[in-house]
Amino acid sequence: ATGADNDLYINQAVVFIEDAIQYRSINHRVDSKSLWLYRWYYSRICQWILGLTITIILALAFIETPSSLTVTSDVRYRLPAWDPPCGLTESIELLCFFVFMVDVSVKSYLVGWEEFWKNKWLMAYILTLIVSLTDWIVSLSFFCTETVRIRRILRPFFLLQNSSMMKKTLKSINSTLPEMASVVLLLAVHLSLFTMFAMLLFARTKDGQQDNERVRYFRNLPDSLTSLLVLLTTANNPDVMIPAYSMNRAYSIFFILFTVLGNLFLMNLLTAIIYNQFRGYLLKSVQSSLFRRRLGIRAAFEVLSSLKETPANAEQSCVSVGALLQVLQKVEMDSHCKQAIMRSLKICSSDQLLAAQFQKLFEELDKDAIKQHPPSPEYQSHFMQKMQFAFGHPYFGYLGNVVALANIVSICVVLVMDADKQPSERDDFFLGAINCFFILYYLLEMLLKILAMGLKRYLSYPSNRFDGLLTAILLVLEIATFAEYGFPHPGWRPEFMGLLSLWDMVRLVNMLIVFRFLRIIPNMKFMALVVTTLLDLVKNLRAFAGILVVVFYAFAITGVMLFKGAVVPIGNIRKVVVLSFKEKCDFMSSVTFRLRLFAAYFIYLLSVNLICRWAKIYFVAWWLISSVIWVNLFVALLLENFIHKWDRRCHRASLSDIEYQRTVELMFRDVLEEPTEEELMEKLHQHPHLHLCR
Amino acid sequence: ATGADNDLYINQAVVFIEDAIQYRSINHRVDSKSLWLYRWYYSRICQWILGLTITIILALAFIETPSSLTVTSDVRYRLPAWDPPCGLTESIELLCFFVFMVDVSVKSYLVGWEEFWKNKWLMAYILTLIVSLTDWIVSLSFFCTETVRIRRILRPFFLLQNSSMMKKTLKSINSTLPEMASVVLLLAVHLSLFTMFAMLLFARTKDGQQDNERVRYFRNLPDSLTSLLVLLTTANNPDVMIPAYSMNRAYSIFFILFTVLGNLFLMNLLTAIIYNQFRGYLLKSVQSSLFRRRLGIRAAFEVLSSLKETPANAEQSCVSVGALLQVLQKVEMDSHCKQAIMRSLKICSSDQLLAAQFQKLFEELDKDAIKQHPPSPEYQSHFMQKMQFAFGHPYFGYLGNVVALANIVSICVVLVMDADKQPSERDDFFLGAINCFFILYYLLEMLLKILAMGLKRYLSYPSNRFDGLLTAILLVLEIATFAEYGFPHPGWRPEFMGLLSLWDMVRLVNMLIVFRFLRIIPNMKFMALVVTTLLDLVKNLRAFAGILVVVFYAFAITGVMLFKGAVVPIGNIRKVVVLSFKEKCDFMSSVTFRLRLFAAYFIYLLSVNLICRWAKIYFVAWWLISSVIWVNLFVALLLENFIHKWDRRCHRASLSDIEYQRTVELMFRDVLEEPTEEELMEKLHQHPHLHLCR
Repeated sequence: ATGADNDLYINQAVVFIEDAIQYRSINHRVDSKSLWLYRWYYSRICQWILGLTITIILALAFIETPSSLTVTSDVRYRLPAWDPPCGLTESIELLCFFVFMVDVSVKSYLVGWEEFWKNKWLMAYILTLIVSLTDWIVSLSFFCTETVRIRRILRPFFLLQNSSMMKKTLKSINSTLPEMASVVLLLAVHLSLFTMFAMLLFARTKDGQQDNERVRYFRNLPDSLTSLLVLLTTANNPDVMIPAYSMNRAYSIFFILFTVLGNLFLMNLLTAIIYNQFRGYLLKSVQSSLFRRRLGIRAAFEVLSSLKETPANAEQSCVSVGALLQVLQKVEMDSHCKQAIMRSLKICSSDQLLAAQFQKLFEELDKDAIKQHPPSPEYQSHFMQKMQFAFGHPYFGYLGNVVALANIVSICVVLVMDADKQPSERDDFFLGAINCFFILYYLLEMLLKILAMGLKRYLSYPSNRFDGLLTAILLVLEIATFAEYGFPHPGWRPEFMGLLSLWDMVRLVNMLIVFRFLRIIPNMKFMALVVTTLLDLVKNLRAFAGILVVVFYAFAITGVMLFKGAVVPIGNIRKVVVLSFKEKCDFMSSVTFRLRLFAAYFIYLLSVNLICRWAKIYFVAWWLISSVIWVNLFVALLLENFIHKWDRRCHRASLSDIEYQRTVELMFRDVLEEPTEEELMEKLHQHPHLHLCR
Repeated sequence: ATGADNDLYINQAVVFIEDAIQYRSINHRVDSKSLWLYRWYYSRICQWILGLTITIILALAFIETPSSLTVTSDVRYRLPAWDPPCGLTESIELLCFFVFMVDVSVKSYLVGWEEFWKNKWLMAYILTLIVSLTDWIVSLSFFCTETVRIRRILRPFFLLQNSSMMKKTLKSINSTLPEMASVVLLLAVHLSLFTMFAMLLFARTKDGQQDNERVRYFRNLPDSLTSLLVLLTTANNPDVMIPAYSMNRAYSIFFILFTVLGNLFLMNLLTAIIYNQFRGYLLKSVQSSLFRRRLGIRAAFEVLSSLKETPANAEQSCVSVGALLQVLQKVEMDSHCKQAIMRSLKICSSDQLLAAQFQKLFEELDKDAIKQHPPSPEYQSHFMQKMQFAFGHPYFGYLGNVVALANIVSICVVLVMDADKQPSERDDFFLGAINCFFILYYLLEMLLKILAMGLKRYLSYPSNRFDGLLTAILLVLEIATFAEYGFPHPGWRPEFMGLLSLWDMVRLVNMLIVFRFLRIIPNMKFMALVVTTLLDLVKNLRAFAGILVVVFYAFAITGVMLFKGAVVPIGNIRKVVVLSFKEKCDFMSSVTFRLRLFAAYFIYLLSVNLICRWAKIYFVAWWLISSVIWVNLFVALLLENFIHKWDRRCHRASLSDIEYQRTVELMFRDVLEEPTEEELMEKLHQHPHLHLCR
């Protein structure tokens, strides 16, 4: 092994350790140039540019032509949305495509040709780019007048392919599909059987009164099917059955059977199936992350052990401490961790490390970062020491909570008193005076706490940061209000303007003080469990949320294309409903969580038979995906998290004194299995580019 | 031990074995007279009388004064309900109370005084009876004119105390309450915080358009609270947010936050908590049943071993085969089981049985009854043998399914074709002819199958019994139709009359043929799992359903007392809604599952602010109990069942050839723990009345 070889080995070790830290796969090219390219590709700036590009291309939908990013969504009042000239969004798109092309080429090169042909995600990436570019050329050659733009629906793919978590989650969801399909099939059978029963029951009587019912819900096959489908979502729950029940109480048996079988049994069965599939999903994913980390470390050990400095006579391969120090200096990692490894390396007795020792060194990566708060300042004066004792005491914090409670109660009282008055009769003096008093108290509290704890210690608690920020905002708003309207006096009535007047702002920020109370939750045993579960869930949900965004985006764009201008206000009769419909279509162009809510609304529209058949199919698909599947996935994840926490709570004593930075990995630490040496070595020998000389 | 003692021991053993069979506790008096009383009390006839009495007293609500058991529930059309004279229902009640008094005295006597004071259920039973009787006397002394009748609300208690399963389930639910309360508290905090935000956001603007929104949903504190509570049930989901969204898109953030936190997180957390508590609930209950069974058998062994026939010199206590045979002859048990035990007793080598052998004999009780179908008849004639082969072949069954499919399709086609026609234009000839043909086919199929399989074998399959019954009903209806309307001919139009005319009946029964298809489900792997889970669930749900009935009944009676005559039709404007409201109040008097459905309806009424505050509290409590808690319990049970099944499916090969009579006990057999000898003996020595002489 020459000097150049040595450099290469060192570089390989650096990259492998970085892979381990980031839980990345080590199956990439390992020659010098590729390593340089690899580190450049995974550098913070490159990844940031890639992320920005994805954000930009997704955000384009907000300003592209059939969108409507206006304050109000009511077509009667809103101003026409800004219409970008042809070529503006298109050129931004081209730039994004260019970045993606660079991305895909680098990725493909780095995995190597053999791996490339096995990697379906990369192939799909290239295909998506080709289709998008073709569509872009077509679009420009029509001078942006064509309506169907396939590339817009394809955009969320760029988000999807960039996250390994999301790809993994998608794989999991995919494996649940056959079972879900069975239940959906059962649901379909259930629905069609009951539709036929309904038609036989309700469609064939001649009674004038019941005809009403018939015309509305069970006129013909598609209508009956729709009515019952909507009943399955419970959106038209009482309406659809009241006329029949009025006719004859016995008809209710039909609806009860339908609801019990459909809603209680089949829909909940879907939850059970998804939960069953996702049991252990988190554990499995954390286990595979752990394997990647151990593999990266082991690979680094193997390449370092082939350095020439290593004594060849050793029975077992080993690594010199000097080489490892050299590698560590080059590795980009958390400085806190790096120092800890360096420290334990210095107190190491031998200057050669065995594989097990090498792994042990890097276990520092898995450890919790224990957060230590800076010490309080030490005052000389006796008076100051007493002050410090008084205002650093927890009771002072409790007093703050009591004051915040008083603040909320007073706001409540004012709101209740004002509720029945006409707006012109109201007097804002009382509220203004209260605000003034409480803001002064909060300011005083903040200053005293800083005095007692010192600024650094004060800021090291997140709850203090939150309080401080709130107090500062309140103070600024209050001063601005006084400058604008003068000091409060009886009959004081600040004017309203815009969405939130300055005055409203003050009160809203006042309301944020309420959140001080959420701080008392960790003091209650069960509440703490619930809240930490919820917080953990938010962390674990990122991949799901990403997939949800992908689905929402695709649905929103499809919706915009399908329904653009399809519904316009026609006269006065159906004005509200039709307007809301139009609104909702615009709604879709804003790619947010709103869609979740509005699924229910469309189900409602379905029930009043206002929309055509194609729209029905679109919305039923939407309901299935957003309400049924996604909500069940969510429930499954929640159950998984909660039950795991619950089990752990019984096992170990509370560690509430030390604030851990909890991660998913840590949550599962006690049940994770360490990969064996054989597994690691087998995987290493399967590496497509690294050829270990043993 | 004398001869009288011997008789006593035999009788004790008989009762203990019967206790073991029925999973009853053995902690009752064991002297001769008490044993006679005990066997009499648990005899089929006594238990049947008790059950009948409970049914009667619960059913009284249907005919008591403020009820309305009429065909239609519409106050505009219905005839006045039958008003029983004062004293009629009251005397039936008194009879029932008398039965209950006998019941409680016998029960109290049998458990003995010491146990009685520990048994809270018995005390509550006596208290309920005293309160009921007092109320009954008050009622009669007012000549039935008083309105508040406490004893009606107490009635479901009689149902509750009579079932040990229900008592056990209630205990389980009770232990979940503290955790549920935490989440409900979180929900309340969530709701009140958001209510204040809503009032600050929506209540204080002067814009004319938004005032509409304000007046409707956020006028004052109670209204805002109601609106958001209803939003939590998603009943007013789009309506409440559309006006705000129309004003300014940013307002949707408020509703999204509220829904995501409240509906997705907190409501599902409730599911998680209940599921967590009920994990292992089934297993635990089956385990305790097993313990009772083993304990009963062991107690029988112990008393039999103190018979004088037993050789005193034996090291271990043992029981003579003769004594056991004597006991077995007296025991009331499944004859199939008894014979199996007798048989294995006869092939037993020794004439003395040790404890383990004794237990082993009675394991027959736990075994699956393997169902064997009687053999097909053996025909002499070659032609008949061929016939038998042809019509006994599964393909003939498949052909039947295909014909049933054709039947359904043809009915569908007729329905779709008729849907757009006026009732006067319709021609029922086609449908009549189809019916005639298919019924003939079904009749032929049945006869051929009976020919091939023999009547006994044919009837031993449940699916055949179902088919045969359907065919017979169809045939009778069809003949009746022909007798009434003559044979079908073009332009044939049977008249409608009543709820279902004869003609409608025929078609409905025709529809039942559809269920033949459900028979193909067990052939599909996953479908079979799903369906057996559902069927198991129904078995396991009995206790839950009972508690549900109890809660429904109490709520319904309270509702009838609270709202009787409170709402009457006022003019035309709110006629429909107010009528429906009235309807719904009557509705309550019919104690059925309907209440489940109608909770949603009242939530809807809540949202339109039509009912007063007291009603609100009533309905919110109802919503919490029926929709939130009960549905979550159901989901928990479903998850438990399904996941258990799923795990087992992977472990063992399919046993589809043999039809097992599956019970909960069998489902868990491989995970149940046998109680140890020490546990059993310890429990036996704690028996309050049995004093074992060792």
